[in-house]
Amino acid sequence: MVLDKIQKENDIKKLTPQELRQLPEEIRQFLVEKLSVTGGHLASNLGVVELTMALHLVFDLPKDKIIWDVGHQSYTHKILTGRKENFDNLRKFGGMSGFPKRSESSCDSFDTGHSSTSISAGLGYAWAREMSGEDYHVISVIGDGSMTGGMAYEALNNAAALKKNFIIVLNDNNMSISENVGGMSRHLSKLRTSSNYTGFKEGVQNTLEKIPVCGEHLVAGIRKTKSSIKQMVIPGMMFEEMGIMYLGPVDGHDIRAMVRIFREASQVPGPVLVHVLTHKGNGYEPAERHPSRFHGTAPFDVETGIPKDKSNPSYTDIFSTVMRKMGEREPKVVAITAAMADGTGLKRFRNMFPERFFDVGIAEEHAVTFAAGLAAGGMRPVFAVYSSFLQRAYDQVLHDVCMQNLPVVFAIDRAGLVGSDGETHQGVFDISYLTGMPNMTVMAPKNKWELSDMLKFAISHDGPIALRYPRGEAYVGLEEYRAPIVLGKCEEVYAGTKVLLFALGSMVDTAVQVRDLLHSHGIDAGLVNARFAKPFDEEYLKQVMDGYDVIVPMEENVAAGGMGEHVSCFLRKEGYQGTILPVAIPDRFVEQGNVDTLKEMLGIDASSITDNIIKVIK
Amino acid sequence: MVLDKIQKENDIKKLTPQELRQLPEEIRQFLVEKLSVTGGHLASNLGVVELTMALHLVFDLPKDKIIWDVGHQSYTHKILTGRKENFDNLRKFGGMSGFPKRSESSCDSFDTGHSSTSISAGLGYAWAREMSGEDYHVISVIGDGSMTGGMAYEALNNAAALKKNFIIVLNDNNMSISENVGGMSRHLSKLRTSSNYTGFKEGVQNTLEKIPVCGEHLVAGIRKTKSSIKQMVIPGMMFEEMGIMYLGPVDGHDIRAMVRIFREASQVPGPVLVHVLTHKGNGYEPAERHPSRFHGTAPFDVETGIPKDKSNPSYTDIFSTVMRKMGEREPKVVAITAAMADGTGLKRFRNMFPERFFDVGIAEEHAVTFAAGLAAGGMRPVFAVYSSFLQRAYDQVLHDVCMQNLPVVFAIDRAGLVGSDGETHQGVFDISYLTGMPNMTVMAPKNKWELSDMLKFAISHDGPIALRYPRGEAYVGLEEYRAPIVLGKCEEVYAGTKVLLFALGSMVDTAVQVRDLLHSHGIDAGLVNARFAKPFDEEYLKQVMDGYDVIVPMEENVAAGGMGEHVSCFLRKEGYQGTILPVAIPDRFVEQGNVDTLKEMLGIDASSITDNIIKVIK
Repeated sequence: MVLDKIQKENDIKKLTPQELRQLPEEIRQFLVEKLSVTGGHLASNLGVVELTMALHLVFDLPKDKIIWDVGHQSYTHKILTGRKENFDNLRKFGGMSGFPKRSESSCDSFDTGHSSTSISAGLGYAWAREMSGEDYHVISVIGDGSMTGGMAYEALNNAAALKKNFIIVLNDNNMSISENVGGMSRHLSKLRTSSNYTGFKEGVQNTLEKIPVCGEHLVAGIRKTKSSIKQMVIPGMMFEEMGIMYLGPVDGHDIRAMVRIFREASQVPGPVLVHVLTHKGNGYEPAERHPSRFHGTAPFDVETGIPKDKSNPSYTDIFSTVMRKMGEREPKVVAITAAMADGTGLKRFRNMFPERFFDVGIAEEHAVTFAAGLAAGGMRPVFAVYSSFLQRAYDQVLHDVCMQNLPVVFAIDRAGLVGSDGETHQGVFDISYLTGMPNMTVMAPKNKWELSDMLKFAISHDGPIALRYPRGEAYVGLEEYRAPIVLGKCEEVYAGTKVLLFALGSMVDTAVQVRDLLHSHGIDAGLVNARFAKPFDEEYLKQVMDGYDVIVPMEENVAAGGMGEHVSCFLRKEGYQGTILPVAIPDRFVEQGNVDTLKEMLGIDASSITDNIIKVIK
Repeated sequence: MVLDKIQKENDIKKLTPQELRQLPEEIRQFLVEKLSVTGGHLASNLGVVELTMALHLVFDLPKDKIIWDVGHQSYTHKILTGRKENFDNLRKFGGMSGFPKRSESSCDSFDTGHSSTSISAGLGYAWAREMSGEDYHVISVIGDGSMTGGMAYEALNNAAALKKNFIIVLNDNNMSISENVGGMSRHLSKLRTSSNYTGFKEGVQNTLEKIPVCGEHLVAGIRKTKSSIKQMVIPGMMFEEMGIMYLGPVDGHDIRAMVRIFREASQVPGPVLVHVLTHKGNGYEPAERHPSRFHGTAPFDVETGIPKDKSNPSYTDIFSTVMRKMGEREPKVVAITAAMADGTGLKRFRNMFPERFFDVGIAEEHAVTFAAGLAAGGMRPVFAVYSSFLQRAYDQVLHDVCMQNLPVVFAIDRAGLVGSDGETHQGVFDISYLTGMPNMTVMAPKNKWELSDMLKFAISHDGPIALRYPRGEAYVGLEEYRAPIVLGKCEEVYAGTKVLLFALGSMVDTAVQVRDLLHSHGIDAGLVNARFAKPFDEEYLKQVMDGYDVIVPMEENVAAGGMGEHVSCFLRKEGYQGTILPVAIPDRFVEQGNVDTLKEMLGIDASSITDNIIKVIK
């Protein structure tokens, strides 16, 4: 096995040409095999095997800084930097992260997880290098999907001022997580198919190879040549217009070609974009056929590519079904996604109502203000988005939706702990940042039926409204509790004495378990499904509070600014004298791991909560 | 006066050509005269007088929707829609807003205030129009400065999918609030000076005039013509590449030319960008010479343009001085602004250390992650930004700075109530959204000396740290209290009995007044300068709490998620039995007005707070 010779960074440089030819296949086999057991981001990683190898062949780690945009495509990078052995614990609690982590390796130079950050971070590194007089290369590797994010454009717009080397590798697989959209995509596709490549580009390359002296001189030559014939060929015109030199496109599965172009790029005295064409899922047929399904995959059968266990319907599935129904019933309903039609469950809506479906690309800011415009124009937009990605649009939610009190529905998926994606993807801030916004309503359903009821309620609500629900299987308990949704009203599930569990969304499930555990200790706890984090049911709480010694607000969100703080302050203001024992996530980032494990670690699992309650009572 | 004939929207259409020629001068005189008394955004409004007139001549209000990006340039629009009489109360409490407001006029179709939202909102309107089968024009007017915001690019990237008319007016004055930066700016400046305008463009125009039939047919003609010679002339290439038709540039002070081009644009069956060249401050010499000073101006002398009263040093002034000093002392200090070098006080730093100063354009997202990259590369970046604009970078602060615990300093100006800019600019959410972020430290100084001490402390702090201070004059009381800044430690100003005022930042000034008022009622209140909203001084509070019947956390921030909630929950957890009376901004958007008036209205002025405390004690 050639792979065995790779024990640490730069070992790849010692391989023979023959071994280098063999390595990609071995890496692919390794990835497919490991990920079929652990799950993980497969398709994107299969696409960048050769690209990563070429980068490692040309650059010198950890001195040079490679920044992986989004970061889920860094598996080969991890293999090549001595972390092969950790793949059995990939994305597991205490195991290796599925993203670059500075705390994990000195070869990971910037933590990523969300999209479109790499050029900004890379520019920061490059300028820091200049100011501190150091000498290293900075390479930001960004996908064509991430290029639809405005932040990437802001960074490109600022790149030209740097007169020293900075390399942007555009990993173009003609596909972000969903299909790619918009003008930039069209521009790239034109470049992709441009015959200039073989003609003009190779011409330049040949010329270059004949020039003996490298460096600024040579590059000035390229620049001049390209500029003079720009009017005729326009390769990468859009980038060149922004002051960024464009090289490519180059075949992202041809290591030699990439090595050559990266060497060339590393000589450019300014920002240079290398356009690399890759195939998502490359080399594993099921992933090539279904790149979206293999974007982030559960464990699967290697032969067939079929996921190993079929789980019960998720909240996403329920959302998907109800959106389809609401689309039929209500012609003003419009669905918006930011490159997540699949993940958010909007595919069915898209198929049935393509004219009322919008995939805006990885552009959450635009998505929200676009929704505000639609609402101002009389429509009922539903923006389906993951909790941690909605963070991108904090200002737009506040400034464009809430301030005008426009009826936009935020269907917030992956709210709460998400598990194996870790810190960057935990959806544990939305209750805090949304309940702080005037005019906003925030709800969370206890089970699958309530998600359906709440979505219908939300669509009929005259103002900004958010509906948050967790990743994974929908809770199917408490089916018989289905009182109509009323704004700001909770649902009393069980009356009780002594202890009141006031649980929001996913925490109702946990509260049912806590109640059972307390029962076995002879405590008859009340259980309320809070339903609304804002406005929460002040009237109910005021009415019942004196009947309880302990009130336990429960939420899957950070404590600071969460429902628990709001409820606690309210209860005290109303003169409640008992103990308030808020259950929430403490002030720390939460790493990857099985959600149950994480809850235990954080002390928000049923057993820890029960213990704490019993401690207080005694 | 021609102006007297304008009583409501569309009245402008009844004017004779002679009157139309006279109107711009009258509007300019009116604006200069009114704003010399009230203050307001002068330069930008003087620049768009003719542009606004042309739009009002071509389009039909309120049926057609004009969306003003940023919105501070909508004064002529307000004059032309019957709001001339309200200029004496411009930006005053209960008076007319300095921004478009749907609640103010049916001719204001979308509320704006922050930058780069107009294309997204306009696209929303345009699609809503298509889906609901209505028939109106949508025109987004965006400045070249706003085009540096990534959100505008996200929207442009999504525009091409619309196959029906949507007009983007690019109001290009070659200047945002600060100087314009980056690739897009260079692209525009090339277009601006391109000789194609007079040659090619007029040629097309002449051709058009000879074609009898209008509409899609005609436009298809333009498109084809332009496409076929694109390789030679490339006007607006960048927009065309994104699928957006480019028309212009046109002289933004030539009404006839603009009317002609807007009519043409309104026939295009798709998104079309009209490039209009304007001069900021046009027609008023002091504003032409100092457009930045006249961006937002205080009352001034019409003859000389000099502001009427010279106020005492502001927090911004102090920040400016200390940054210059820190720049000298510490070579790793880097300053970043998002198009606000002047407003944030970074001009002096820029002049002394141009190589360590970055104006990234109106691009807060990039600014923050760029700062994270600089910090990862060993520098000490200070991002100076207005509180309400930092909202744009919520995710970057959380995901790129806090998650990696990088030493980035956020110098948050205009934190708290800002006064006459109103809802969109109040900086009253930052304590909530920043204290919710793990690893973040949040401070606020009580007076000008403490701002200086805190900034120095912040620059030496090993992690993300925010320093918030209000707009306007720096407090100069309590000069003698200058205990060294220690992480998480408050400063006891006066010990007392019964009542403890635990005040943050600007509220220390108020607390001093409250204490005096209480004293006159025979109450000897303690006063503590909280200094840190996160981590706040738990140890101190625990130690002293039992000595007080009432504890009053005070902050100029919304209550939800603010310091008051955190402190209240902490005190209760520690078993505090007295009354907690948090002073904060209630759950509502706060309109424009004098800051003192607003505080009274919100019940957070010294006298209201005192009354509430006395009520509780009795």
